[in-house]
Amino acid sequence: MTTPEDEKTAAAPAPAKDPWELPDVSGLVVGVLGGTGDQGRGLAYRLARSGQKVVIGSRSADRAESAAAELGHGVEGADNAECARRSDIVIVAVPWDGHAKTLESLRDELAGKLVVDCVNPLGFDKQGAYALKPDEGSAAQQAAALLPDSRVTAAFHHLSAVLLQDPEIDEIDTDVMVLGEVRADTDIVQALAARIPGMRGVFAGRLRNAHQVESLVANLISVNRRYKAHAGLRLTDV
Amino acid sequence: MTTPEDEKTAAAPAPAKDPWELPDVSGLVVGVLGGTGDQGRGLAYRLARSGQKVVIGSRSADRAESAAAELGHGVEGADNAECARRSDIVIVAVPWDGHAKTLESLRDELAGKLVVDCVNPLGFDKQGAYALKPDEGSAAQQAAALLPDSRVTAAFHHLSAVLLQDPEIDEIDTDVMVLGEVRADTDIVQALAARIPGMRGVFAGRLRNAHQVESLVANLISVNRRYKAHAGLRLTDV
Repeated sequence: MTTPEDEKTAAAPAPAKDPWELPDVSGLVVGVLGGTGDQGRGLAYRLARSGQKVVIGSRSADRAESAAAELGHGVEGADNAECARRSDIVIVAVPWDGHAKTLESLRDELAGKLVVDCVNPLGFDKQGAYALKPDEGSAAQQAAALLPDSRVTAAFHHLSAVLLQDPEIDEIDTDVMVLGEVRADTDIVQALAARIPGMRGVFAGRLRNAHQVESLVANLISVNRRYKAHAGLRLTDV
Repeated sequence: MTTPEDEKTAAAPAPAKDPWELPDVSGLVVGVLGGTGDQGRGLAYRLARSGQKVVIGSRSADRAESAAAELGHGVEGADNAECARRSDIVIVAVPWDGHAKTLESLRDELAGKLVVDCVNPLGFDKQGAYALKPDEGSAAQQAAALLPDSRVTAAFHHLSAVLLQDPEIDEIDTDVMVLGEVRADTDIVQALAARIPGMRGVFAGRLRNAHQVESLVANLISVNRRYKAHAGLRLTDV
């Protein structure tokens, strides 16, 4: 039985830097690919309401612009390529079945950008949701494989689109697990999550451990169903 | 992008029964296979301290008995087969590499029993922990395949063995995700988790969604390392 304390051959010493010392990201432009979908709209709304400059992207610039107008708080809309070009941080919130194709087509626009994948590859049948396992291991690893010149991270998987989009709700009571290979990048994503009141970004490992974080949404769907809830996650003792 | 609200073809209506109406399990005997390991000892200690009758099992009855004596609170020790025979609920807390062999050898003793698998199949290298994917999908599904006459559930994956074993700590601040196919069984496991002060058992899906729950321990190991914590999980809005 393995316990969370087991480290075994993980011999490198933990960095001495305070893990809560995070950069100021308030001046960065955030793009949301798939920004007209439920999760994308919700994230765009929360970030813009927190004062972040947000551009939502869609295949159709018209659709993005009209969704942006509805969201308010200075959100702008553009086609996906223009959204990627104008942004410092690009959140990928497209449906799983368009994930690879969308990212492949934006390789040049996303070069050098900090990419935050929040896609959950799931299948559905009459028993509910279940995890799909991408060949690359996870959606985030697929993004990393398709975008060799981008800085790929993963985060924002477990958020309730209903709560995100509800203007009556002031705080989102949840932690955001942030995964990635480079600390400077995951620090930025943690800081971005912390811009949203109630939310906290917590580093939770490398991209090779993204699959279980992505597919845990299948379990949250079961929780939501049984308890008629919009479940989120908090890490205790952190 | 799939959100936790998506149900799509999950058409069966949610049961009307109050999900917090759980059975009284205070009279059931709980066995812990692998009860001399860190997680097994920790669980046995917490359950016994909460008034549950606990028998820990080990390959060697002598080792089990001396560990039981150390734990106190009426814990008894036996070899694994005797532990299984004497128990109503059997928690499987053995190391992953002995999982299949141990369960196969106890098929008869575990027939009819409520089995709770809490094993996390992980590998370790110099970058830390990573998920192993059993052929059956998860440790819990392997248990279900090997024990066709038992009632197999999965739970207690994310507990800190350090916190469980610390007598100075009165409450364990965490939820326990409980997975299984049969509501009467998962209800019992939820009720068992709730016996431990601070803990709450929450239904979190079927066994086919156990892999991500098991392997999330790899992420908790990263969290513990970065934040020098003993991280647990809480489900919000539930």
